[in-house]
Amino acid sequence: MTAAIQPAVVGATGYAGFELTRLLLRHPSARTPLLFAGQSGSSGTDLRDAYPHLHAHSSDNLPVEPFDFESLKRQGADLLFLCTPHELSRKLVPQAIAQGLKVIDLSGAWRLKDRVNREIYKFDEHPNGHALDSTAVYGIPELHRNAIASATLVANAGCYATSIILALNPWIKDSLIDLQPGIICDSKSGVSGAGKNPSSTTHFVEVADNLSAYAVFGHRHTGEILEQLGLTTQQLQFTPHLLPIPRGILSTIYLHPQPGVNSANLEQSLRAFYSGQPFVRVFGNARLPQIKFSLGTNYCDIGFSVSPDGSRIVLISCLDNLLKGAAGQAVQNMNIMYGWEETTALQ
Amino acid sequence: MTAAIQPAVVGATGYAGFELTRLLLRHPSARTPLLFAGQSGSSGTDLRDAYPHLHAHSSDNLPVEPFDFESLKRQGADLLFLCTPHELSRKLVPQAIAQGLKVIDLSGAWRLKDRVNREIYKFDEHPNGHALDSTAVYGIPELHRNAIASATLVANAGCYATSIILALNPWIKDSLIDLQPGIICDSKSGVSGAGKNPSSTTHFVEVADNLSAYAVFGHRHTGEILEQLGLTTQQLQFTPHLLPIPRGILSTIYLHPQPGVNSANLEQSLRAFYSGQPFVRVFGNARLPQIKFSLGTNYCDIGFSVSPDGSRIVLISCLDNLLKGAAGQAVQNMNIMYGWEETTALQ
Amino acid sequence: MTAAIQPAVVGATGYAGFELTRLLLRHPSARTPLLFAGQSGSSGTDLRDAYPHLHAHSSDNLPVEPFDFESLKRQGADLLFLCTPHELSRKLVPQAIAQGLKVIDLSGAWRLKDRVNREIYKFDEHPNGHALDSTAVYGIPELHRNAIASATLVANAGCYATSIILALNPWIKDSLIDLQPGIICDSKSGVSGAGKNPSSTTHFVEVADNLSAYAVFGHRHTGEILEQLGLTTQQLQFTPHLLPIPRGILSTIYLHPQPGVNSANLEQSLRAFYSGQPFVRVFGNARLPQIKFSLGTNYCDIGFSVSPDGSRIVLISCLDNLLKGAAGQAVQNMNIMYGWEETTALQ
Amino acid sequence: MTAAIQPAVVGATGYAGFELTRLLLRHPSARTPLLFAGQSGSSGTDLRDAYPHLHAHSSDNLPVEPFDFESLKRQGADLLFLCTPHELSRKLVPQAIAQGLKVIDLSGAWRLKDRVNREIYKFDEHPNGHALDSTAVYGIPELHRNAIASATLVANAGCYATSIILALNPWIKDSLIDLQPGIICDSKSGVSGAGKNPSSTTHFVEVADNLSAYAVFGHRHTGEILEQLGLTTQQLQFTPHLLPIPRGILSTIYLHPQPGVNSANLEQSLRAFYSGQPFVRVFGNARLPQIKFSLGTNYCDIGFSVSPDGSRIVLISCLDNLLKGAAGQAVQNMNIMYGWEETTALQ
Repeated sequence: MTAAIQPAVVGATGYAGFELTRLLLRHPSARTPLLFAGQSGSSGTDLRDAYPHLHAHSSDNLPVEPFDFESLKRQGADLLFLCTPHELSRKLVPQAIAQGLKVIDLSGAWRLKDRVNREIYKFDEHPNGHALDSTAVYGIPELHRNAIASATLVANAGCYATSIILALNPWIKDSLIDLQPGIICDSKSGVSGAGKNPSSTTHFVEVADNLSAYAVFGHRHTGEILEQLGLTTQQLQFTPHLLPIPRGILSTIYLHPQPGVNSANLEQSLRAFYSGQPFVRVFGNARLPQIKFSLGTNYCDIGFSVSPDGSRIVLISCLDNLLKGAAGQAVQNMNIMYGWEETTALQ
Repeated sequence: MTAAIQPAVVGATGYAGFELTRLLLRHPSARTPLLFAGQSGSSGTDLRDAYPHLHAHSSDNLPVEPFDFESLKRQGADLLFLCTPHELSRKLVPQAIAQGLKVIDLSGAWRLKDRVNREIYKFDEHPNGHALDSTAVYGIPELHRNAIASATLVANAGCYATSIILALNPWIKDSLIDLQPGIICDSKSGVSGAGKNPSSTTHFVEVADNLSAYAVFGHRHTGEILEQLGLTTQQLQFTPHLLPIPRGILSTIYLHPQPGVNSANLEQSLRAFYSGQPFVRVFGNARLPQIKFSLGTNYCDIGFSVSPDGSRIVLISCLDNLLKGAAGQAVQNMNIMYGWEETTALQ
Repeated sequence: MTAAIQPAVVGATGYAGFELTRLLLRHPSARTPLLFAGQSGSSGTDLRDAYPHLHAHSSDNLPVEPFDFESLKRQGADLLFLCTPHELSRKLVPQAIAQGLKVIDLSGAWRLKDRVNREIYKFDEHPNGHALDSTAVYGIPELHRNAIASATLVANAGCYATSIILALNPWIKDSLIDLQPGIICDSKSGVSGAGKNPSSTTHFVEVADNLSAYAVFGHRHTGEILEQLGLTTQQLQFTPHLLPIPRGILSTIYLHPQPGVNSANLEQSLRAFYSGQPFVRVFGNARLPQIKFSLGTNYCDIGFSVSPDGSRIVLISCLDNLLKGAAGQAVQNMNIMYGWEETTALQ
Repeated sequence: MTAAIQPAVVGATGYAGFELTRLLLRHPSARTPLLFAGQSGSSGTDLRDAYPHLHAHSSDNLPVEPFDFESLKRQGADLLFLCTPHELSRKLVPQAIAQGLKVIDLSGAWRLKDRVNREIYKFDEHPNGHALDSTAVYGIPELHRNAIASATLVANAGCYATSIILALNPWIKDSLIDLQPGIICDSKSGVSGAGKNPSSTTHFVEVADNLSAYAVFGHRHTGEILEQLGLTTQQLQFTPHLLPIPRGILSTIYLHPQPGVNSANLEQSLRAFYSGQPFVRVFGNARLPQIKFSLGTNYCDIGFSVSPDGSRIVLISCLDNLLKGAAGQAVQNMNIMYGWEETTALQ
């Protein structure tokens, strides 16, 4: 267990960066984080100007500086959180690791082991990838807690991917699912998942009173899901939709049980896998989570229902895309890396 | 072709009833509709008190009376629209038909031919159903225009069912779909679909910033979809969700093409089937409709996308649940029954 | 009365421009409008790509070209609608008038007679303004119908200004109001009022679940209100707020009656003034309009309530900012300019 | 200072009751609260069934029982929170006090000293009121901290009243305001302020995309505001509006400074009054709070702007109606009553 550390956040003015900063400010073992602008973030400002939600009484200022490794070193940073576009993460992480920093990267830059899956990110990379590709640990603690504990680089999982992987992993590991007919993941996310940069996609008038599907085939998170669950492209269909709400994800997952598997087996599998895991709530058979149950929390909520004839399952998974889907999971990973109580600053 | 008729609306104060009244008021061949309360609707009021949206300058009042066949007869009604619970429709329709009225019923009371499918409605019925069960025409004009033209009783289709049937019917009729792996319909609807009666389900605080799945297996509309498309229970999974928007439905449908079927075949099938149909807009391959495109219109919008390897299809269908999903389709059916231009009062 | 004319819309891809185009497309005396991009609008596109809401069956394309007077002339335009920033309207209008076109300008460029009021727009203008400043007619038909009928240049009124001026004008003209304590106008508008360009102000995540006041003193529409109502700066306070809804304005106006004036006098004044006016609905004493009653219509709805002791009035005015507050009023002005029925294309 | 106490919540299933329970569950000096149903609340249930948001891992159940003084006594309750209709609070409080309990009442039953102001509540009361009317302490800590510390009965302030009183109190106490022209308070609240009982007022379809004014004159909170600020009916106009958001209040307050008072004086007055007060954030001159800044917190945020000529002020106050406007303020009051750190469980 480590005493207090000095974290730094790059991309602090985005939605995930702000949420992360808010959590770090209340973490007893983290000093006030050093804040840096990401590629498109503003610098020279104070985070409170962008987010007056932050306590106005605190005597500390929260200046956001342009990113600079010298400044990072001078101020004694131990752990770097990157809330930056994946291209920038791809550049900054090797340097940071070389300087002896630990890194939790919230982008998709280091999540994928398979070169084919990485192609969608269009990194400027060596044919065999970077050496760090193999040492980066995929940042879902419920699957990789031990590896995270000793990791230098944690690739924090994608928001959609977290909701789908946590829901499916126990049943797949326990071989309860018939993979032949394929698994359909119909996900719906709030707008903060699209980031803070204004665009026609995030304009209030375009989003309100509306629903739309996007990236119908081949959304970037697909690769993470396949790799973590050991599935082939043929076995998984993932399609996201943009919901007219600020935050939250609900994934509706359609699948088939193996012959002889009933709802009790399915519930038992989930309960056994998540027993003692602080941030997954199993709702069980026929009790379905809704987005609002997990908003503002680091929980992933999982429930399911089996068809009357027992041949099909609808599995529902919900989480807050900025917490368990981003900043909350990042802090959970940090807690594990430093041997602190996993729930610190997250309750 | 018929000159002006006298329509009557039972359940005029609900969302579908009001929308229907609004359309009838601007229909050149329909006299000002007689308005009646449904089971839970208020009577003795004027529709404008419930919906001040209606033009305040019109010299006509719009009184809503308790329902009464005598009053209906005395005022010379020709056509009865029922925006009533299915139990009430089940009672009123035989009497109305016996009195020589034509009926368009917006409830689920007369949509189903199969006794097993009807069981979910728990009608108090004879073992073999009512004689009218076999003569009622299912009210989607794009499938049953000729039968509607000569029908006495039209069972206006369900909102979810319309969105799914219109999207799937051409490909199933043209045998372009591999039915073996099953079709998944993940639908999302605005809150007006849940009716005007206040409940915890429709409370603003419960719905806003939220999304939830419900009736995960066996929603009432499932039977209509199966019957109209000629599918078995094993071949179709339909799960609806409640969206935090007032109106609109988007159905995301996952399916597999028959071997050798490509996106051009699929687009051609849709375009051929809906050629000359005024209320279906085919967006074609990779152009996907969104809910807001069809809001306030009687269109059903259909688009789709095929996976890069050609093995899977995501089909998207959108409509306004109160128009093409209820009142608009009812007026479209009326126009066909009386030989008027199908688009009258609907553009 | 004029037979069919050829209208043109500059800034057709913005929210007001699209709404205007939609109205013109169904106007029996207007040919399919020529569409031009505004300063920031895209050109070389078809309006249906930006707004798939438009009927997909129509055989007409709706190309949006870069603005060009030559093209305008060649295609025989009669009437120019400007949905452009005021700086651009200031430049284009004199040229258009010189070429013999009639103009309806939806910006604030020509609404103000008083040089001091115009200062806020920072026009690059002669000390005494442009000659057209004095001939432009302020475009609220309920106040200036005759002048509009013979106008060459109509300065379509601002959305907030329309809601406030229509509500207050009858009482001020009838001297029913005590102006000494001042009039407070607390207005609330949906986000489409902020335009279609994405910004942090219009980002869904910033607007949803929120409310904020802005331009607390000196919003640009203040000058219009003062000039049209003949008030001094001391007599009127106007503060707008940004509502988390796509469209609609509600103005809550606090004022005091002259001694002896009661609610019957107040209602009578409104009813007399708006008798025969097709687009103002007087709700009368203690019946208050809500935003949703006027959405999608060209109505301005007005209601009020008097305090039990008779000393104070709360006056409520609602309208759809894109219709009576912009495009609808522009078409109403066009109908008057050409001697057509005032409600054409607006019911 | 008191060690751990046993709190009880009556009306635990409503929005304020749930929020209060959530806060008490994380309070280190409060035992798990006893939960009782209010008049219309359900009993025999577990609070987690109504609010699955609550942690599912906790081993404690949260049963909600029908209210019963015997049960309360048997289980050793020390402090009773009433989230009940005012009629019920009027009945329960005298009994509870007689049994030696302390009470924090979240209803309007005991807030008013003036019999005339109380009339709106239509209590069945003695002409001179109840003896407790004079001993109840109005529950805004920033105004009555000392009296609350020694109170037996705290009448927790109304949500609108808190937002307005906190904003205006410093300036009125410091005589910076010209009361002659009157103060206008235009308030806007989210729907949770209307309670959890479903009604047409809280139906999603009625509220969404809408805004409406209600209780335009004589809203119940008016009396509290007048009494606490020492104003007459003539000096204050308060009108609330229903916003299409789940929670949050913004009050826009229009007023005039005394001659010679400038923005520096005004800001200094606010800063001096709230110096050391943990739950009021002064944004100062020209920095205006928005609803979302205070959501999920116990802060009341206050900012203002002065007109260029110095003659008028617009004062903006925001808070979360379920926290600083109800449950959060109740816990703050509890902390003061028992000598605990005022911010316990509220950061």
